[in-house]
Amino acid sequence: MTHPATSSSSMVSSADVNGTAVYSPNGEHLGHIDHLMIDKESGVIAYAIMGFGGFLGMAEDHHPIPWKKLNYDPSLGGFVTDITREQLEGAPARDENWRDDRNWGAATYNYYGIPPYWM
Amino acid sequence: MTHPATSSSSMVSSADVNGTAVYSPNGEHLGHIDHLMIDKESGVIAYAIMGFGGFLGMAEDHHPIPWKKLNYDPSLGGFVTDITREQLEGAPARDENWRDDRNWGAATYNYYGIPPYWM
Repeated sequence: MTHPATSSSSMVSSADVNGTAVYSPNGEHLGHIDHLMIDKESGVIAYAIMGFGGFLGMAEDHHPIPWKKLNYDPSLGGFVTDITREQLEGAPARDENWRDDRNWGAATYNYYGIPPYWM
Repeated sequence: MTHPATSSSSMVSSADVNGTAVYSPNGEHLGHIDHLMIDKESGVIAYAIMGFGGFLGMAEDHHPIPWKKLNYDPSLGGFVTDITREQLEGAPARDENWRDDRNWGAATYNYYGIPPYWM
């Protein structure tokens, strides 16, 4: 997959984000971006939902992370993040109302060291 | 297509946005959201790219519009906008460098009466 617009432009298409691989800074494959959650009112990406696992009959895990933890690397054709697998697995647990739970949201952004998207 | 998360939540999934129908305030089908263009640095949706036409061998037209011109209506299962077809067709023309052309961006946001996403 080539990303001509992604490599040099200040913008990236949502069609090039969903399904794109995510790597660690040393090039280890961590997972992929499954989809983005968009704050309807502001049009800001609230979370990138990262999927990993899903091998050998095990369900894939989905982890919401701040967009600002992702950097697109054209040479890899994917995103690089300094979030580790252990960090993903230790992130604040969410219940089914997580989308509208500002306490969970604040705890999650704080956990990843990024100011919340609504601030 | 049902959008359970979309109807009541403050967030919407990018997977539910791409391909979703766009209607006029009186329910006329105008087109669909083909994809979103995301400002990489800020994680803000710079433009929703609306597609329409594409019938009888004619190419589909793509028109970047501000996210804030779209309102999701669960009863329609799509977005409603007050942008008319004539407005779309009369929008500022873009060249291949439109993604990084702030003059074009400012003219486009001004045309639709919305403050630019970077302000």
